[in-house]
Amino acid sequence: MRETLSVQTQQRSQMLDITAQVQQVVSGLGVQEGRVVLHCPHTTAGLTINEGADPAVRADILAALEKLVPWQAGYRHQEGNAAAHIKSSLMGHSLTVLLDQGRLVLGTWQAIFFCEFDGPRGRRVLVDVLEG
Amino acid sequence: MRETLSVQTQQRSQMLDITAQVQQVVSGLGVQEGRVVLHCPHTTAGLTINEGADPAVRADILAALEKLVPWQAGYRHQEGNAAAHIKSSLMGHSLTVLLDQGRLVLGTWQAIFFCEFDGPRGRRVLVDVLEG
Amino acid sequence: MRETLSVQTQQRSQMLDITAQVQQVVSGLGVQEGRVVLHCPHTTAGLTINEGADPAVRADILAALEKLVPWQAGYRHQEGNAAAHIKSSLMGHSLTVLLDQGRLVLGTWQAIFFCEFDGPRGRRVLVDVLEG
Repeated sequence: MRETLSVQTQQRSQMLDITAQVQQVVSGLGVQEGRVVLHCPHTTAGLTINEGADPAVRADILAALEKLVPWQAGYRHQEGNAAAHIKSSLMGHSLTVLLDQGRLVLGTWQAIFFCEFDGPRGRRVLVDVLEG
Repeated sequence: MRETLSVQTQQRSQMLDITAQVQQVVSGLGVQEGRVVLHCPHTTAGLTINEGADPAVRADILAALEKLVPWQAGYRHQEGNAAAHIKSSLMGHSLTVLLDQGRLVLGTWQAIFFCEFDGPRGRRVLVDVLEG
Repeated sequence: MRETLSVQTQQRSQMLDITAQVQQVVSGLGVQEGRVVLHCPHTTAGLTINEGADPAVRADILAALEKLVPWQAGYRHQEGNAAAHIKSSLMGHSLTVLLDQGRLVLGTWQAIFFCEFDGPRGRRVLVDVLEG
């Protein structure tokens, strides 16, 4: 069972908490036990899990990535967004999350984030729910 | 089928080889073919696969991460462990490992590591075994 | 259902587009819906998804990784390839890709890359296809 989430980013670099949207897909499908695979079909964005409570954590992650992979650094890719491609491979494009009694299995502080590195844009995340 | 491993770390940054513990869960369940998903429910720790034979590899990985993401660097997150959050997203929070005749499918030199970035602490790893 | 791809790299650091090879495995097995797990059994190589159209993107990713993790930097591991181990954990060793009507579900610009960090070598990638 598969659904597509729509995500609208507002900044060039941004981490959006999509946990509630993913949970909504799972709940809508009525699946109790299994695994969810999330896939980001974009090459200048990614997915990660990290702390959802304090927005400063997101700011620190984005700032650290910007320091490691500056927006301008003599890249060969001519579209100007090479840094976004690099960051997306550092974060990764897919996540597997377990289900327990219909809920995403996440630690107390964990949230699922869509990582925008070349926004603002309209983006998509595929949510694939496997029962079992 | 799901079990929870307990992991006790001894240092602030540490890579613990949990391959044998994961294999023990799989063997205990008697599953021969399928896939194992490991999930780290903590936001200042992660999971990775790398060389298990030479402990120097672990030391090099941890030192490289420390150089890339120093413990103190003017972070906004006030708890003092922002670097640990950043490193955890660089390593990732889940792994999928295949099974073959009841054994984890890993290369000759591969081991599964729990990556502690804000220890020492008692930690957990979820081991989800899907037969098929 | 599982098959092993053979990959021959030509340089020390190289990103090889293996999308067509992976699709060929899926098509050969005749699986229409499900999930593919790719596993890289090597500790000095990895797997990632990124743009396949412009080779400059690959060059930028490899150059950025080389800048972040230089080949020589006083590592403890005595085999001279510590940087390759570190880069492999930054990229990761497995990928999960969804299937739709027999095709890998990838974004318009996405391709699957084998990341060599200590070549040239003959390498392998496990392709595990789960129907459902």
